[in-house]
Amino acid sequence: MRIDIITVLPDLLKSPFEASIMKRAIDKGLVEVHFHNLRDYTTNKQKSVDDYPYGGAAGMVMTVQPIDACITHLKSERAYDEIIYMSPDGETLNQKMANTMSMYENIIILCGHYKGVDQRVRDHFITKEISIGDYVLSGGELGALVLSDALIRLIPGVLSDETSALTDSFQDGLLSGPIYTRPADYKGWKVPDVLTSGNFAKIDKWNEDMAYEHTKTRRPDLLEE
Amino acid sequence: MRIDIITVLPDLLKSPFEASIMKRAIDKGLVEVHFHNLRDYTTNKQKSVDDYPYGGAAGMVMTVQPIDACITHLKSERAYDEIIYMSPDGETLNQKMANTMSMYENIIILCGHYKGVDQRVRDHFITKEISIGDYVLSGGELGALVLSDALIRLIPGVLSDETSALTDSFQDGLLSGPIYTRPADYKGWKVPDVLTSGNFAKIDKWNEDMAYEHTKTRRPDLLEE
Repeated sequence: MRIDIITVLPDLLKSPFEASIMKRAIDKGLVEVHFHNLRDYTTNKQKSVDDYPYGGAAGMVMTVQPIDACITHLKSERAYDEIIYMSPDGETLNQKMANTMSMYENIIILCGHYKGVDQRVRDHFITKEISIGDYVLSGGELGALVLSDALIRLIPGVLSDETSALTDSFQDGLLSGPIYTRPADYKGWKVPDVLTSGNFAKIDKWNEDMAYEHTKTRRPDLLEE
Repeated sequence: MRIDIITVLPDLLKSPFEASIMKRAIDKGLVEVHFHNLRDYTTNKQKSVDDYPYGGAAGMVMTVQPIDACITHLKSERAYDEIIYMSPDGETLNQKMANTMSMYENIIILCGHYKGVDQRVRDHFITKEISIGDYVLSGGELGALVLSDALIRLIPGVLSDETSALTDSFQDGLLSGPIYTRPADYKGWKVPDVLTSGNFAKIDKWNEDMAYEHTKTRRPDLLEE
């Protein structure tokens, strides 16, 4: 998979791609990630990428020209599965979407800033608008990181134990139940007896019951689906 | 506000706090952010922070001891409003929660990794579990960044134009409508006539109508609330 991220703050994106799973995936050659600084694509002398909104509202709006130049340049080099704009009013990301998108070959992620991008960008260049949740962030960069991580960890070969991602919350429509590790007794707080019983049929049943109960308590909406 | 983030990957968190709004808030002295490397709190020779789960499941689980040591140390120094664990089965973050939490003085954010933390950590130390959305990430660090950004930008004095956050999506229960900036005509793509009319009453009405229509089309669930 190749991910092209268009941003006014490429430095913000650095460290998460230099650590953890995303770094491992890049090192293994399973993913390529490229940052594109929008300022490199402006044609005005001030290298400005934003301007005041029409209609006298507060905040600034990202202009069409540099985004047009950057996306047009990238599209001339390869075909993209989706050109994504991160925005709180986009389609809310969920695990099912992540599963599907993890099979894509090339995506562009455009990070908005200030009050967002000129609507003409969304009308003419963007093929998919994604929100990571019902809250507002200071820019699309954290959303781009979240989306990248959600997709990259699903690419076969990225996680060391391939069964691992499949036992995650949401993959079977349930939240994960409680998990425990050693010691069996920590300051008098004990792990449930069943887990140290050695009876694996009983343990499996317990894990299933707990995941179901946990989901029923916390997220009954997931059971209704 | 003071944010203490407990993590096994402090390096991952660096660049987002060195850019954009979060850096500005830190530079202005409005927020203090401290990273705590969980490995500094282990008492075992190998500095290991995880172990195999009971019951033979896949993946690794973060152990109680270093988390206990770190949280107990922090709590001995000051009172915390919440000790938060980022987890996909936590309460789903929304703007209303962010608004409330932006008024907190001190919070701890614990980032999980691998298959998560030993349940006894959640039972005995955590006061609030937060999910940033219905998808799985490789660790809690990106969630901690998202939560930090969502809160920090709401602290008075952080955004240069204080009215700006109040006109964001979700703050009035509606998504933002389309926004435009210059030029009025870009390659034949024009901004709506009303916006260049100079009639501000008409513009306000148009903005309201568009926000309502946009919300009705994309997120009718928000209108029901």
